[in-house]
Amino acid sequence: MNKTLIVGADVGGTSVKYALVDAAGRQFRQGEIPTDPEDPAGTIERLAATVQDDLPGERRIAGVGLACAGIVSPQTGLLGRSPNLPGWENSDLAGAIRAAFGAVHQTVANDVNAALYGEYRFGAGRGCQHLVMIALGTGVGGGVLVDGTLLTGFADGAGEIGHMVLELDGAPCPCGNRGCLEAYCGSVGIVRRARELARGDGATDRWSAMVDARGDDLTTRDCYDLAVERDPTALALFAEVGRRLGQAVSSLVNVIAPDRLIVGGGVAQAGDLVLGPCREMVAAHVMSSAGQNTPVVLAELGPFAAAMGASALVTESGATP
Amino acid sequence: MNKTLIVGADVGGTSVKYALVDAAGRQFRQGEIPTDPEDPAGTIERLAATVQDDLPGERRIAGVGLACAGIVSPQTGLLGRSPNLPGWENSDLAGAIRAAFGAVHQTVANDVNAALYGEYRFGAGRGCQHLVMIALGTGVGGGVLVDGTLLTGFADGAGEIGHMVLELDGAPCPCGNRGCLEAYCGSVGIVRRARELARGDGATDRWSAMVDARGDDLTTRDCYDLAVERDPTALALFAEVGRRLGQAVSSLVNVIAPDRLIVGGGVAQAGDLVLGPCREMVAAHVMSSAGQNTPVVLAELGPFAAAMGASALVTESGATP
Repeated sequence: MNKTLIVGADVGGTSVKYALVDAAGRQFRQGEIPTDPEDPAGTIERLAATVQDDLPGERRIAGVGLACAGIVSPQTGLLGRSPNLPGWENSDLAGAIRAAFGAVHQTVANDVNAALYGEYRFGAGRGCQHLVMIALGTGVGGGVLVDGTLLTGFADGAGEIGHMVLELDGAPCPCGNRGCLEAYCGSVGIVRRARELARGDGATDRWSAMVDARGDDLTTRDCYDLAVERDPTALALFAEVGRRLGQAVSSLVNVIAPDRLIVGGGVAQAGDLVLGPCREMVAAHVMSSAGQNTPVVLAELGPFAAAMGASALVTESGATP
Repeated sequence: MNKTLIVGADVGGTSVKYALVDAAGRQFRQGEIPTDPEDPAGTIERLAATVQDDLPGERRIAGVGLACAGIVSPQTGLLGRSPNLPGWENSDLAGAIRAAFGAVHQTVANDVNAALYGEYRFGAGRGCQHLVMIALGTGVGGGVLVDGTLLTGFADGAGEIGHMVLELDGAPCPCGNRGCLEAYCGSVGIVRRARELARGDGATDRWSAMVDARGDDLTTRDCYDLAVERDPTALALFAEVGRRLGQAVSSLVNVIAPDRLIVGGGVAQAGDLVLGPCREMVAAHVMSSAGQNTPVVLAELGPFAAAMGASALVTESGATP
């Protein structure tokens, strides 16, 4: 039994991050290979070959957990809609794993769900029963864990926290609608708002100059750099992001009452600039007095969270490394 | 075994509704007694005496399920904060049941959770696994059922759907905050908005006259009566209520992906005037294409839903009538 390892892998738009994990959930090795955006089966075959090369002599693979952006069905093993991986849409992930790895235990999951499960088992959610995760990246993803089980919901549609409606006819969202959480707290939305502030009357000269100079290359990192230097426009921008995040988090705590709410993704690196106003909203808008103090915490596991979570999901589905 | 019955009871601010239910979940009898707003133990004793009087000769009580407005802990049997029953706050419901009924199986639950469970077992949610319920009354309550189990969450704080934040600095809510779902879709909020419309320029003469004439006695029923007669201001009011309900429902479907969403409570009697615009919002704002068609349906069980649900909860906790 202790001669076997589990593969956890997280397929992103440009690369597949993987981890080889032993029985105790310890990472034995981790690595990254390029994603072929048009060839799921080929990518997973290359993953299998790479992992086999990494494998110490007496070890063998007992299970494969695969996380993927998009609507993933753990029941059927199929990937549905996937904005980041359009060439992978409607592919049979479970079949590709079987073809590449043979008859091993396997499980597939949405990437944010897998990251949430990783945080639950190894990171910021250890010891909790109910968790909500919000991943603030280019878009805004989410996941919900109830009594230690990931909530997938009807037709695997749960966890679209980024499209909670924060304002009727609000800011434009990359999804085509208006007023979604993602429109305010995803990096596309933040950069849009950064430009809007630069065009307005209230912005500092420094802010407007920075936005002009960066042009089409403007990122949330540029905005954050000025916030670190206490530029008032930059601080106001992140406070707005935090208040909108707090609006969504307050609603989530009122409805779900998680033990903790975990915030991950690149934008989360703004830390208390965003989490401070968010926590103030939660204290003001949550009904349950216990819930008003719900810890809103940063994710701990970093970029391999989903790979680690995928390995734990397959372990708990029956693979015993 | 078939000589026993289960009591399901729902404690409201003015009356306790109860149902005597047999092994198949069939109502054997139902009734109502007054709630003593200052005396939980006395009220529950009177319930026991009334139920014993109703009991046919050879039957005995095998279990008691008690639903109550407020924060109820099924684990400890305690009632916490309860805006509708302030004199019952911090009382030991489980202890009062034991004192009045003796050593029977018992369970306690929040009233909307119990109503949701009733709909799940006997009404609009039959055959579903995941459900969300919104009760549109004076206030707005809610409940969430995941994989057939009621979600209570950390410190029993889940289900406060009425305080999802629909608008930053929005309409005043009875809870003291602004912008909550309840501020737009509870009858207090609807009546407030009805008066606001009457004071504005756009209202019909008929609307303004009705609001004036009813004065402090204005109810959502008065508003509904004009909507039935196609008064444009009344129709616009209920369309607004439906859009706000739809904003919350869209977020709930995006996050939880229930099989169905059940709308109950007095305001729900406005039916398609409210549910029509709500369903349009869901079709527009839900990401999952399956979720866009999530059935948004009216509750079916009526005022004894929570009593029926409480009886089912105690049956499934181990009491076998």
